[in-house]
Amino acid sequence: MRVHEVGEFALIARLARRLEARLARSPLVVQGIGDDAALWRPTPGWLSVMTTDTMIEGVHFTAQTMQWRDLGWKSLAVNVSDLAAMAAEPRVAVVTIALTGEEDVEDIDALYDGMADLALEYGVQIIGGDTVRSSHLHIGFAVTGEVPEEGGSAEVLRRDAALPGDVLVITGHPGDAAAGLELLLRDAGAPWPALVAAHRRPQPRVAEARWLSRQGVRCATDSSDGLCQEVELLCAASGVAAWIDAARLPLSPALTAAFPERGVELALDGGEDYDLVMAVRPDDYATIQTAWQACFSVPLTAIGAFEAARAGQGRVEVRGYRGPRNGFQHFPVPR
Amino acid sequence: MRVHEVGEFALIARLARRLEARLARSPLVVQGIGDDAALWRPTPGWLSVMTTDTMIEGVHFTAQTMQWRDLGWKSLAVNVSDLAAMAAEPRVAVVTIALTGEEDVEDIDALYDGMADLALEYGVQIIGGDTVRSSHLHIGFAVTGEVPEEGGSAEVLRRDAALPGDVLVITGHPGDAAAGLELLLRDAGAPWPALVAAHRRPQPRVAEARWLSRQGVRCATDSSDGLCQEVELLCAASGVAAWIDAARLPLSPALTAAFPERGVELALDGGEDYDLVMAVRPDDYATIQTAWQACFSVPLTAIGAFEAARAGQGRVEVRGYRGPRNGFQHFPVPR
Repeated sequence: MRVHEVGEFALIARLARRLEARLARSPLVVQGIGDDAALWRPTPGWLSVMTTDTMIEGVHFTAQTMQWRDLGWKSLAVNVSDLAAMAAEPRVAVVTIALTGEEDVEDIDALYDGMADLALEYGVQIIGGDTVRSSHLHIGFAVTGEVPEEGGSAEVLRRDAALPGDVLVITGHPGDAAAGLELLLRDAGAPWPALVAAHRRPQPRVAEARWLSRQGVRCATDSSDGLCQEVELLCAASGVAAWIDAARLPLSPALTAAFPERGVELALDGGEDYDLVMAVRPDDYATIQTAWQACFSVPLTAIGAFEAARAGQGRVEVRGYRGPRNGFQHFPVPR
Repeated sequence: MRVHEVGEFALIARLARRLEARLARSPLVVQGIGDDAALWRPTPGWLSVMTTDTMIEGVHFTAQTMQWRDLGWKSLAVNVSDLAAMAAEPRVAVVTIALTGEEDVEDIDALYDGMADLALEYGVQIIGGDTVRSSHLHIGFAVTGEVPEEGGSAEVLRRDAALPGDVLVITGHPGDAAAGLELLLRDAGAPWPALVAAHRRPQPRVAEARWLSRQGVRCATDSSDGLCQEVELLCAASGVAAWIDAARLPLSPALTAAFPERGVELALDGGEDYDLVMAVRPDDYATIQTAWQACFSVPLTAIGAFEAARAGQGRVEVRGYRGPRNGFQHFPVPR
């Protein structure tokens, strides 16, 4: 059955039931889907953290590389990753889906199943939304999270708090998501499930970011737009520069095996990893690194350092690599 | 200059500066545009109220009927109206604009000026957003408001709280917005500025809804989808029926003059008025009506009543009118 045969109100009711069947309602939700707006109870003493991100067919994804259920996961994950990059815990979300009406209702069910997968794993409540007609598919979320405010200062991870001398540290394996996308575009993803999963089901670093914030880390962003570009962003916001040692990039075994010549290129400029890129005070780094290993299986790696900005020079210098840059452009990374 | 010539980051910086120049930053905003997500401080003892609504070119508006600045106003207004329909005060908003890149930057400036017009008038802070590329224009907001919670119960206006015997009451002049759209589609709007303004610059009833809630009104929605359809919605949610007396519809002088034959039709089924439709306890109505007139210039009018639902009968009966229904369909009302 097509969406336009079901009608808008029946579709909304169907999708709301589908979410309700899987997501236990949190006591913080006072009124969910079904009225003019949704109500939730903020945590006393915490700040609210709000973000919004939209994925558009043909711009941010294609049917060739994303299945419906993964699309549901990812469209919410990219928002939760923005909250993680502030060290916030996700709480509530509203979703906008624009449909042509020609979609199969079962595919939209799968889309919502993917949203529910992410929502369950990360404790997000989907409390409302908007269903609209459009000439092409898009899925947009606005998600609100919370971050504790202690003694008048929020425990957030800001972009503008890097200092010269700070260690440049990342989580995860950069380049895996871009590698997965490139394989999928060549119909060659099957032998590389880890790379494909990195593209389709990114894992926002919520617990990791909260933990890092509690260790005193104050400067981070997420690597949605590619590692170098995100380092550039931290540098610009903080008024500093940085260098990256290509030899220290924690390339995954799968990336090295699938792209023996291009691992560094994909790690530097491939996008959509949704890992954390941060500045850590040099005196804190060893302690944090040791404690991290006891808590998380994802790697935490020092790949360079921040330094004073110098007039007339670029903000981010890559050392130990002279190969092609920005190689990953045939499907432009969403901005 | 075209949007694609400016580039994304320069465009965002330009629009952020434009908003900042007009909107004084509220102390509740801790971190606005410029990081991974935005931070704001909820009011202790108030619930957060969240809604989202998107306007898509060719579906919700056309360049023929909406100018850029009005589009900015209206795209935020329709969201604020959803908050008003819960008796919430708007606080913070995030905006998604999808652009083809071919737009003139000055037009996008005007779009943001219209958002700022609404934001200033209603005390909304635009604290973040997402700028994406798309094959057609759309503008989406997610807006969070607040409503006081006293003694564990929120002072909200719900859809499901109408009782048989309640008076059916509306604010404003139904049909004006639909009349304005119809005139604009015929290029005949110039002699009817009030009707055109009703379509282009709807006034969400925020103060009115808060006031009604303080008077003890507990059931309302906004008339975005047309009066009859919204009454139907209240009836379905509350498990009741209702009748409307066509003779009591408060048609505006402009509507009656511009559409001498079709005023009732447009008032019943035209959409996008963004006024309030509510159920008022019969014992309270006279007091509320008298007090209202001392506070607001917009009319408050009893047009019918709610009654017990009866099996096999429609939920909404219109008395005293036998003309065409659903007349306003050549440009379907956004859902």
